[in-house]
Amino acid sequence: MSERVLVVGADAAGMSAAHQALREGRRHSRTLEIVVLERTAHTSYSACGLPYWVAGDVVDGAALVARTAQDHRAAGIDLRLGAEAVGLDLPGRRVLVRPAGSGAGRPREEVIEFDHLVLATGSAPRVPDWALTPDGDWVPGVRAIKTLDDGQAWLDLLQARAGRSSRRRPIEHAVVVGGGYIGLEMAEAFVRRGLRTTLVTRREVMGTMEPELGRMIHASLEAAGVEVVCGEDVDGLDIGDDGWVSCVRAGPHAFDGDVVALGLGAVPQTALALQAGLPLGEFDGLLPDDRQMVADGVWAAGDCCESRARLGGMRVYVPLGTHANKQGRVLGTNLAGGTARFGGVLGTAITRFVAGGVHVEVARTGPTSEQVRELGVTGVSLLTRSTTASGYMPEAAEIAVWVTADASSCRLLGAQVVGGPGTGKRIDTAAGAIWLGATVDDVADADLSYSPPFSPVWDPIQIACRRLADRL
Amino acid sequence: MSERVLVVGADAAGMSAAHQALREGRRHSRTLEIVVLERTAHTSYSACGLPYWVAGDVVDGAALVARTAQDHRAAGIDLRLGAEAVGLDLPGRRVLVRPAGSGAGRPREEVIEFDHLVLATGSAPRVPDWALTPDGDWVPGVRAIKTLDDGQAWLDLLQARAGRSSRRRPIEHAVVVGGGYIGLEMAEAFVRRGLRTTLVTRREVMGTMEPELGRMIHASLEAAGVEVVCGEDVDGLDIGDDGWVSCVRAGPHAFDGDVVALGLGAVPQTALALQAGLPLGEFDGLLPDDRQMVADGVWAAGDCCESRARLGGMRVYVPLGTHANKQGRVLGTNLAGGTARFGGVLGTAITRFVAGGVHVEVARTGPTSEQVRELGVTGVSLLTRSTTASGYMPEAAEIAVWVTADASSCRLLGAQVVGGPGTGKRIDTAAGAIWLGATVDDVADADLSYSPPFSPVWDPIQIACRRLADRL
Repeated sequence: MSERVLVVGADAAGMSAAHQALREGRRHSRTLEIVVLERTAHTSYSACGLPYWVAGDVVDGAALVARTAQDHRAAGIDLRLGAEAVGLDLPGRRVLVRPAGSGAGRPREEVIEFDHLVLATGSAPRVPDWALTPDGDWVPGVRAIKTLDDGQAWLDLLQARAGRSSRRRPIEHAVVVGGGYIGLEMAEAFVRRGLRTTLVTRREVMGTMEPELGRMIHASLEAAGVEVVCGEDVDGLDIGDDGWVSCVRAGPHAFDGDVVALGLGAVPQTALALQAGLPLGEFDGLLPDDRQMVADGVWAAGDCCESRARLGGMRVYVPLGTHANKQGRVLGTNLAGGTARFGGVLGTAITRFVAGGVHVEVARTGPTSEQVRELGVTGVSLLTRSTTASGYMPEAAEIAVWVTADASSCRLLGAQVVGGPGTGKRIDTAAGAIWLGATVDDVADADLSYSPPFSPVWDPIQIACRRLADRL
Repeated sequence: MSERVLVVGADAAGMSAAHQALREGRRHSRTLEIVVLERTAHTSYSACGLPYWVAGDVVDGAALVARTAQDHRAAGIDLRLGAEAVGLDLPGRRVLVRPAGSGAGRPREEVIEFDHLVLATGSAPRVPDWALTPDGDWVPGVRAIKTLDDGQAWLDLLQARAGRSSRRRPIEHAVVVGGGYIGLEMAEAFVRRGLRTTLVTRREVMGTMEPELGRMIHASLEAAGVEVVCGEDVDGLDIGDDGWVSCVRAGPHAFDGDVVALGLGAVPQTALALQAGLPLGEFDGLLPDDRQMVADGVWAAGDCCESRARLGGMRVYVPLGTHANKQGRVLGTNLAGGTARFGGVLGTAITRFVAGGVHVEVARTGPTSEQVRELGVTGVSLLTRSTTASGYMPEAAEIAVWVTADASSCRLLGAQVVGGPGTGKRIDTAAGAIWLGATVDDVADADLSYSPPFSPVWDPIQIACRRLADRL
């Protein structure tokens, strides 16, 4: 007998869950009918790739779609685009569906019953009131960047100079609000497009890094010509005669801005879950167990969920594609009769800023020194400077490595890197070690790779761990 | 009371041991007098950097010296250059020293007593008879590359075209004998210097890799214009009228060669140890325990030693700077009263070939499938292809990842990668995981870093481990 799996949301988490449930179901000889509802017209796209589309690295937005609707349907998934789940009757095991946006040709409403429900409704960018008109539209020139439509809208905004909109003045000055990953990447995109760029952020740039490393990134942005303003909230905008933003006001400052990009983080989209009475956490996210189940027959994965920190087990909200994919896979396995557990989140993240003659790579994993204190352990931290290749090689770039360890167990807890080409992916050495519970001695002793174009004899991560081990 | 530590050999292993013994001695309030004998005029240089000096990446050979004699002496080490240990009286705790080469000003012979002896005599390149004249000198145009003097000699050889030697004809064609790391790196140097280059090797190129990956590297070399001849031993040379090599004969082949570089591996230099009756292993290396002790009060580290494989514990001979440094550090710690153990060798190695329009990076760790069989476990292997960055990014290059795991424990045992920029250092994710005893599931589940310029959503190493886990 066939069981119906109803998936709400057709991006990384939902589609990973759907495909994995199909695979795992076959292993257990279960016949699963998989129906996926997607409010938009798009599936399985790379939100992380959007800034690179805006920057011009990616020429066609279609390239950001990992798997098309046709791909999913060919795999046997009943994918319904433009279909929005607007009501959830958990006891009745059914969802009320309405056509959304482009779904004009569909029947007005439909009720779909399910045996298993997968909530993969994702996140929405955090949008302050000042970014919207009284009607709830974007103020012309202002926008977040989260969806493919946002990406296209940004390209259109930036081409306003070519006369495609009501705007008559050229786009010369961009303001980025928010100093995190998206903020950094949008600043990169704007500098590469030749715009004068201001970045305004409430804390130091990259507030999830140790302050000392944040200051290095700050300095790199300034070296690339970005005006960086920390410690300020944006209070509001001035609007020009043409209806476009003309100025961004933040405390005592006023910055000319022809376009304003928002990088203020994301919030879980959980209206459906909330309406059905499912519990939400302190970050307003769903609270799946490590099998990704939120209630009997109800599952959730991806950006609509809070996760557990691998170290300490606290609930955290880390909306990233890697977790969405892994959680979706875990979900699909369990839903279809297998066994899998999501191992938690270290908070590993990586980005870069390559523009204006600057190339800086940034990555982190595990808790900051502040978060280590919250874990209730005594952390010992250290910042070392080294090079990405043997110092005599032309490839050698500076790299700063920060590591922190538990003073009593000597376990590596966290690591952060800032430096030139070849810096970023080194974080995986630390992330893998922390994931596996290694001590700083374990890392320092490990047989890692060395050759002059790739590393000093001791890899920079090892140098940092060696020095930290010597202090413990 | 002061104890005298006599170190024979002033490169990575010996000088790491010397400095670490000083540091550790201070922690234990032991006064160590450290005397280091070095036969040559050089200390602590990067042999791995020599091909890049020949290629022109490194402009000045002095840059390859990590610490000069002055640096070592300033740290309180009695470093004696041009001093060769020619006799070892173990029961008498003394060494007979003679001036070598440039030590003309020294007394003819000297006996130095010791409390602790450190053998760090290194390795010598394997040199076939055909490479030498009857007097034991290099045939003009032929040379290995191991020392700073070799590096300078190579630069002189290649400038013969400028009339600096007896040679009158220009240097146009280089032959590299040996397809391992040094062979690949010297081929890179020659192609970048505009020479027609032939590489002759007994097995497939990079014989320490799985054959399928070796063939990829082979194809990359050919794409760069290198003539690659596998399965042949060099039988001898033809010598021209000017006394220089003119042709290399290998089986049915004869290759024009104005210069011939040897990359046939290295052998431990253990004459002193052998003469004193210290036991040697099947690779003719010294056999230290994991504290780096070879006999009471006698220690050894670096290229003159065999090591233990971390997986399986077999004796292996892996003469690399990383192990020399780590072993020297372990040795110095133990000698001076501390406790440290060398954790073994996975066989991690990395190189690249960047020339002739080709950029290929190559790295490996852990046993090959053949070596897995020798471990007595059932290995399951898999080769996957992926990209170094998200497929839509201009940075995205192909990467092939081979992984092998123990079918019963699911532990990752080995990994190898071949691919474009961004490939090589990914081996450290696998090396770290193998070092720590991780399963393929552990690696696939880990919170590794993702951002479009750096990786697909699942890192290529994780993709390979995920797929292998699904097969187990």
